[in-house]
Amino acid sequence: MAETLKGMKRTHRCTELTTADVGKEVVVMGWVQRRRDLGKLIFVTLRDRSGIIQVVFNSETNPELHEKASQVRSEYVLAVRGTLARRSEEAINRNMVTGEIEIIASELRILNKSEVPPFHIEENVDANEALRLKYRYLDLRRPHLQRNLHLRHRIAKIARDYYDDNGFYEIETPFLTKSTPEGARDYLVPSRVHPGKFYALPQSPQIFKQLLMVSGFDRYMQIVKCFRDEDLRADRQPEFTQIDLEMSFVDMEDVIAVNEGFISRLFRETLGLDIPVPFKRLTYKEAMERYGSDKPDTRFGLELVNISDLVAESGFKVFRDAVENGGSVRAINAKGAGAKFSRKEIDALGEVVKTYKAKGLAWMVVEAEGLKSPIAKFLTETEIGQIKERLGAEPGDLLLFVADKDEIVFDALGHLRLELGEKLGLIDHKRYDVLWVTEFPLLEYDEEEQRWVAKHHPFTAPMDEDIDYLDTDPGRVRSKAYDMVINGYEVGGGSIRIHSQELQARMFRVIGLSDEQAGERFGFMLDAFKYGTPPHGGMAFGLDRLTMLLAGTDNIRDVIAFPKVQTAACLMSNAPDVVDEKQLEELHIKTTVNDKSEA
Amino acid sequence: MAETLKGMKRTHRCTELTTADVGKEVVVMGWVQRRRDLGKLIFVTLRDRSGIIQVVFNSETNPELHEKASQVRSEYVLAVRGTLARRSEEAINRNMVTGEIEIIASELRILNKSEVPPFHIEENVDANEALRLKYRYLDLRRPHLQRNLHLRHRIAKIARDYYDDNGFYEIETPFLTKSTPEGARDYLVPSRVHPGKFYALPQSPQIFKQLLMVSGFDRYMQIVKCFRDEDLRADRQPEFTQIDLEMSFVDMEDVIAVNEGFISRLFRETLGLDIPVPFKRLTYKEAMERYGSDKPDTRFGLELVNISDLVAESGFKVFRDAVENGGSVRAINAKGAGAKFSRKEIDALGEVVKTYKAKGLAWMVVEAEGLKSPIAKFLTETEIGQIKERLGAEPGDLLLFVADKDEIVFDALGHLRLELGEKLGLIDHKRYDVLWVTEFPLLEYDEEEQRWVAKHHPFTAPMDEDIDYLDTDPGRVRSKAYDMVINGYEVGGGSIRIHSQELQARMFRVIGLSDEQAGERFGFMLDAFKYGTPPHGGMAFGLDRLTMLLAGTDNIRDVIAFPKVQTAACLMSNAPDVVDEKQLEELHIKTTVNDKSEA
Repeated sequence: MAETLKGMKRTHRCTELTTADVGKEVVVMGWVQRRRDLGKLIFVTLRDRSGIIQVVFNSETNPELHEKASQVRSEYVLAVRGTLARRSEEAINRNMVTGEIEIIASELRILNKSEVPPFHIEENVDANEALRLKYRYLDLRRPHLQRNLHLRHRIAKIARDYYDDNGFYEIETPFLTKSTPEGARDYLVPSRVHPGKFYALPQSPQIFKQLLMVSGFDRYMQIVKCFRDEDLRADRQPEFTQIDLEMSFVDMEDVIAVNEGFISRLFRETLGLDIPVPFKRLTYKEAMERYGSDKPDTRFGLELVNISDLVAESGFKVFRDAVENGGSVRAINAKGAGAKFSRKEIDALGEVVKTYKAKGLAWMVVEAEGLKSPIAKFLTETEIGQIKERLGAEPGDLLLFVADKDEIVFDALGHLRLELGEKLGLIDHKRYDVLWVTEFPLLEYDEEEQRWVAKHHPFTAPMDEDIDYLDTDPGRVRSKAYDMVINGYEVGGGSIRIHSQELQARMFRVIGLSDEQAGERFGFMLDAFKYGTPPHGGMAFGLDRLTMLLAGTDNIRDVIAFPKVQTAACLMSNAPDVVDEKQLEELHIKTTVNDKSEA
Repeated sequence: MAETLKGMKRTHRCTELTTADVGKEVVVMGWVQRRRDLGKLIFVTLRDRSGIIQVVFNSETNPELHEKASQVRSEYVLAVRGTLARRSEEAINRNMVTGEIEIIASELRILNKSEVPPFHIEENVDANEALRLKYRYLDLRRPHLQRNLHLRHRIAKIARDYYDDNGFYEIETPFLTKSTPEGARDYLVPSRVHPGKFYALPQSPQIFKQLLMVSGFDRYMQIVKCFRDEDLRADRQPEFTQIDLEMSFVDMEDVIAVNEGFISRLFRETLGLDIPVPFKRLTYKEAMERYGSDKPDTRFGLELVNISDLVAESGFKVFRDAVENGGSVRAINAKGAGAKFSRKEIDALGEVVKTYKAKGLAWMVVEAEGLKSPIAKFLTETEIGQIKERLGAEPGDLLLFVADKDEIVFDALGHLRLELGEKLGLIDHKRYDVLWVTEFPLLEYDEEEQRWVAKHHPFTAPMDEDIDYLDTDPGRVRSKAYDMVINGYEVGGGSIRIHSQELQARMFRVIGLSDEQAGERFGFMLDAFKYGTPPHGGMAFGLDRLTMLLAGTDNIRDVIAFPKVQTAACLMSNAPDVVDEKQLEELHIKTTVNDKSEA
């Protein structure tokens, strides 16, 4: 039977011990990382959440204890009493925090045994991820996951401290709420008490936080789970966590200032990095023109250059047509890549842009004497000269061109740029570039539905100077929305909301909703807005993504204790699973799956 | 159209202004509490989350502004610029925090209008609760709800600060998880990706927090929503919030000490009250014997007294039978109530005990000369004398007796005691009595299932000294469980868990689960326990109830922003509601309700 703690009290975690404690009697508790038998000595490395320390059992001074120690195996749980000693010079391990010390054991309790774990618990163990997720409780013992979850705890704590310091109240909003027809797919929860009716899990607390502004709470924040039943990508989870906030009586600059303060404090207190405020800003237009993306990675150059004017009347039909059809021709100068990349590598870049719907990638390798380029023959000497000049081309450079509708040019070159940044080693992975992207278009045209739709959500306010275009030129209207971007990731976003009922009604008309339809969709929220809504705005950060960035990992499952895989299943608990027929009956539902064994 | 904030920035919240600011130009923003027109002056009381302040518009100095002010109505949203002035002596309002000052307006913007609200926004408005819940966003403007939610924010913040200071990590556990067969009814979430399968919303993070201990996180906490689809009582909500925690390498005293530190800090920082540690403790047995309850309200006496030995051989059959059948006869001396209560009132007390299944309530009114009592005739003078002596009876006292099985006697007299405490005005509603109840029975016998079941959950550890009775006398085994009780409410509870596999297997056998059945029910958790589980234990506080207590309200909806009513519906959002047929199809379910219009 497992031994008890009775009469034993832990005095330190493993790495809390230092040479200053040498000579003291200490008690540590943890898991066996490793046991080594060296003749009359047994060395056990003991691990707890702080790290590891070496414990020594000596058969000469304490043969019984030595015998007991010989029974311990990896991952056994021990309590050890002993005297802290300094290691002899030759035994010092400089790679270990506690490498200068060790505990000479005087008492050992085996608090629990362990079967042989399915993989070794170590920092860089390369076990199959599915196996590690099945045994997540063991996977979580690995130091880097321990560190990541501690970091996540600290991020959440700093967020709560910061927003509390700034007058925000954390207010809980409901999880069992109502399905709203806009947005992603809802997770539904059948009601037992109301047959045929369903709750929906919230995709975000958007409506509730705006109602809290109507209620006069002034400053709200919440760290809260949100749910979206979307087809999953590698960096998505069906349940994810937002740092969500909303403020009243503010404009965009107020929201930006408060949140710059948060991010700045967060980097200082977690990584010791100074991110000076105010942050850089790019308008949506500038971000697209320069980086081909509304979440640009600004840690490196390779900016896009518009050469449409130079080739508008070119003999090269592909370029000329693009410009004539209202599109553009844009280029990237991959500095020095002409000398580095093989023809095969250049062709591979062509495949990249095709993924993003570009018809092809034109290129020029600039040489000391002239060019190597399949398109040179279609261009005049003057055109080539002007292009080279605008791109600042020098021998050894690789110039890459995409000609198409702007949308496709940006998308293709934006992604090509990221690929080149990695390939050319231009990205400093220790650097954090934090910026705001502003002046997003308020609306975008949905070709399928043949109507304008809100780019963010229909409560986002238009910029004052653009309101007049709402009816005449909706595509031109910019919004009071803002995204925070770090190293090419959108880590947060928000907007100033419409608080005027008249403007809200106009907005609904622009997106093709009659008053009646708007009422059906947003009923109680529109009712609320009749009773004195203050000017307000807010934003939400993705906690999972923020933690990923600060932890320096690109696997979102590395920052979530019990994550789901791409099929939204948990390999450890086996959720979702079949349930008793009786449970479904009580909920007034049945499955449409006939043979559940095949499900 | 609503006016904008452009060029205007709030300088203070209403009650942040004091006489020290007199003469300053200030900008406040908020809602119109009240407008009074007094000839050339208009007085507007403006409200924000901090409270109210008076704004003055003068038609002589600023006729245009006065005219604009005359248009404002209750709950309009205003921004006001003006100069802070001291009120004249006769205009001072001592009932108002800002009663000595007022703002002489120089600029007014009507940021938004408001329709006439369905009830007046005031502290003690007596509107129908259903109406208030429908317009919850207006109800929440009332000062006491603003205060309650601010208090709730502070309680959560103090909890996070305290547990963080004590080395706890807040770790998020999943919401989309697996249905577990023990416990209350689960809320289910159909899976779209896995036809015929369902997630369950967690009833508590119990399993996950124990797995985090297996993972070596050592100290975990989380403030987290939990879900139980139970038939609702007035003080229950289908979703509720726990302050949940777990610790490794600890015994009961460690868990108790950490949590006493929390509660003590909480009372100090919220109410300014000193609750000295260590807290009082009562064993379960003592709590039942003295108060007839395992969550006793110890703010007043009226303790139960066992008189079984005095009446075991009495001529009064009701008493004698109860003792002979293994039950007991117990009494409460309601001091002075004999002189106060009418016969009708005493009969009403009899109805109280009948609610708790007692067959009847025997009573004696002690008078200067003798007794008034329907049962006196069945007792001897000696018996009466002994009973009076044991109960310390004096003239004017009312002695109340219940004879039955212990269970019924405790329950009936325990509730009768609470009723008497209120009726006799013995409860000091400003006092907080905090205590632990310990040494709960590990098991209780389920008459229906004809087997022993775990009183808490099957992972609760037995007391070391009682382990030997597990097989021979299960009812005698006490557990390492502990509840925290404040003023008769159970605000939290927890236990040391079983960490030995052998002991866990024994426990399962006692409650009639074969290894196979246990495996089916607790599969991955039992697997996890094979790989080195540390000794661990924890507890959970009910945040809603804790907030209720500290806020001094007995309505749980007063401490939740968007609560549900007893049918688990939200009167504001109308959740749960019908959904599109298409949504159900995607989830591979259909409702068994034929005519949804009737649902």
